[in-house]
Amino acid sequence: MFQESVHAKAFQNYLEKADFPHTPQHLYDPIRYILSLSGKRIRPLLVLMGAELFDSSVVEQALPASAAIEFFHNFSLIHDDIMDVAPLRRGKPTVHQKWNDNVAILSGDALLIKAYQELAKCPIDKIPALLHLFNTTSLEVCEGQQFDMDFEERAQVSETAYIDMIRLKTSVLLGCALQMGAIVAGADERSQTLLYDFGVNLGIAFQLQDDILDVYGNPKSFGKQIGGDILSNKKTILFVKLQELISPTDQEELEYLLKQNIDSEPEKVDKMIGLYAKYDIQTLAIYQKEKFTTIAYEKLTEIQVEADKKEALFSLSDALMHRVQ
Amino acid sequence: MFQESVHAKAFQNYLEKADFPHTPQHLYDPIRYILSLSGKRIRPLLVLMGAELFDSSVVEQALPASAAIEFFHNFSLIHDDIMDVAPLRRGKPTVHQKWNDNVAILSGDALLIKAYQELAKCPIDKIPALLHLFNTTSLEVCEGQQFDMDFEERAQVSETAYIDMIRLKTSVLLGCALQMGAIVAGADERSQTLLYDFGVNLGIAFQLQDDILDVYGNPKSFGKQIGGDILSNKKTILFVKLQELISPTDQEELEYLLKQNIDSEPEKVDKMIGLYAKYDIQTLAIYQKEKFTTIAYEKLTEIQVEADKKEALFSLSDALMHRVQ
Repeated sequence: MFQESVHAKAFQNYLEKADFPHTPQHLYDPIRYILSLSGKRIRPLLVLMGAELFDSSVVEQALPASAAIEFFHNFSLIHDDIMDVAPLRRGKPTVHQKWNDNVAILSGDALLIKAYQELAKCPIDKIPALLHLFNTTSLEVCEGQQFDMDFEERAQVSETAYIDMIRLKTSVLLGCALQMGAIVAGADERSQTLLYDFGVNLGIAFQLQDDILDVYGNPKSFGKQIGGDILSNKKTILFVKLQELISPTDQEELEYLLKQNIDSEPEKVDKMIGLYAKYDIQTLAIYQKEKFTTIAYEKLTEIQVEADKKEALFSLSDALMHRVQ
Repeated sequence: MFQESVHAKAFQNYLEKADFPHTPQHLYDPIRYILSLSGKRIRPLLVLMGAELFDSSVVEQALPASAAIEFFHNFSLIHDDIMDVAPLRRGKPTVHQKWNDNVAILSGDALLIKAYQELAKCPIDKIPALLHLFNTTSLEVCEGQQFDMDFEERAQVSETAYIDMIRLKTSVLLGCALQMGAIVAGADERSQTLLYDFGVNLGIAFQLQDDILDVYGNPKSFGKQIGGDILSNKKTILFVKLQELISPTDQEELEYLLKQNIDSEPEKVDKMIGLYAKYDIQTLAIYQKEKFTTIAYEKLTEIQVEADKKEALFSLSDALMHRVQ
C-alpha cells in the first residue's frame, strides 16, 4: 500500500527476534500477548521514516528506537485499559481482563522498562538526546491520560483544554517517534523540531477526525459503532464546541440528554446530532481538523530535504487523513 | 550517627529542589506525598557512598543517580501497595488508599519516568552504562515482585527459589545503587562488580534478618508486630526451611496451622514457633544470614581502595545488620 511496507517488515522481523524470558510467566506472557495484537504499528513506522528522511543508510540503526516507541505505546494501552475498565482491545480481551489487574499493572511496568532497554541499544552517542526526548514525551502522555480522566468528572471543558489533552495523550508520541528517527539520522535541531511539530499537529488532526467520524463517519468504513461517543457522554471536539456555543434554552435539553441512556431515550444520538446541526458543529470541527492538518503539512514542507524524500510521509498522512492528493 | 549524614543532607536538599509541576494535581500530588513519607533513604545514600569510595570529588555529580534510585524505589512501593492491597505505608495511608487505584497506577508510572529523567541528568558520558544497569535492575525488581506474588499461591517454595526471589525483589536495587555511584566515579569494571555483589549479598542478608526478627526480634526495637509473618502465612526463610525439613507427621500440624487465624487458633504463633524450635530453624536461618553477610564483607574487602575509605560502608553495614565491631 505504502512505500513504507519495507519498514513494516523490518520492524516485524526485529520484533520477532525480541527475546522475552519465559519466567515469571505472568510477567512476560501478557507482554507477548499485547504485542501480538499487532495494531497498525504506525508509531514504529514513523521512527523509521523519520530516520530515512535524513539518511536512508541508518534505518536499521533506528530499529531499537522504533521498538522503544512501540513498547511504550503498548505499556500505556495495558495501563489505560485497567483505568478505563475496558474489556476489549483490538477485538480481544484486554490484559487485565484475560489475567487480572495485578498482572496488568506489573507486566505494564515491565514493558515500560523494556522500552528503555531498547533505548539503551541505540547508537551510543545518540542515547542522551533520545533519552531526554523519550522521558519528556512519556511524562506528557501520563499527564494527558490524567487530564482525560479528570475531564470525565468535569461538566465543562474548554476547547483549548480539550485540544491540549489530546496533544499530550496521543499526539506528542507521534512527534517523538519521528524526531527519534531524525536524531538517529543525525538531523540538525531545526529539522528535528519541524518534524516533531509535523507529527504532533498531524496527531491532533487525526484525533479530531476520529471524533468527527464517530458521529458523521460511514458505519462500514469507520469500524466502530456510530454515535458511541455520544452514548458514553465522551468529551470530544464536537461536544466541547457545542458546550461553548449552546444557548441557555438548549443547555437544558443537553443536560437532559446527558442523563439519558439508550433505554431511557432511544433517540439520544439523533437528538444530540440535532443539537450539533443547529450550531453547525460539524463544520466548525472540520475547520479545526483542517487547521491542524495544514500546520502539519506546512511543517513537513519547511524541512530542508529534497521533496521526493518527503513523499512517503505525505502519502502516509494523506492516507491517515483520508485525503486524496 | 554515621559519617554519611552529610550525604543524607545533600540528598535531602537535592530532593527539595526537585520541581514537580502542580497540574495535573492527581498525577503529581501522590508523588510529592510518597516522597515526603521519607523512610530511611538508604538507597540514595548507597549511590553517594559508592561514588565517594572511588572519588570523593564526584559525590555531587552522583545526586541525580541517587534520586533516580529513590524515585524508582518509591514507584515500586506505590505499585506494590496496590497489588498487595496494603492500607498503610510507613504508618500513613498508601497512595491507592488515600486517592484510588487509578491515581496510584498513573502516578507510579510517572514516578518511574521521573527516575529516568534523573538518569538523563547524570554526566553525559556515563549515561549509557547507567541506563543499562538501571534497566536490568528495574526489570529484575519486577520479576521479583511477580515471583513473590506467584509464591503466595504456591504451597511449596524451595529455599533456593525463595532466596532468588528476595535477591530480585529487594537486593539487586542495593547493588545497583552502589554500582551507579561507582560508575559516576569512573571505577573500573572489576571494582564495580565487587561493589555490586557487596550490595546484593548485604541485601539478601538484611532480608533474611528481617524474616528472623519477625519471629525472634525484640518487640520494642523491631517496630512491627512479632509473628506478623506467621499470622499471614508469609513465605519466609524460616517457613521454607521448615517445609524442607518437616516430617510427614508434623506436616499435618503445619497444614492445620496454615488454615487457622488468630481467632480460630489463638496459639497459632506459639505453635509455629514450637515447630521452628523442633527443627532448629532459627539456627539454620541465622547461619544463612551470616553466610550472605560474610560474602558481602569479603566482596567489600576485595575492592582495591585504601581501607579507611571503606569504613563508612562497613559501619553502615554493621548498623543494618545490628553488628557491633
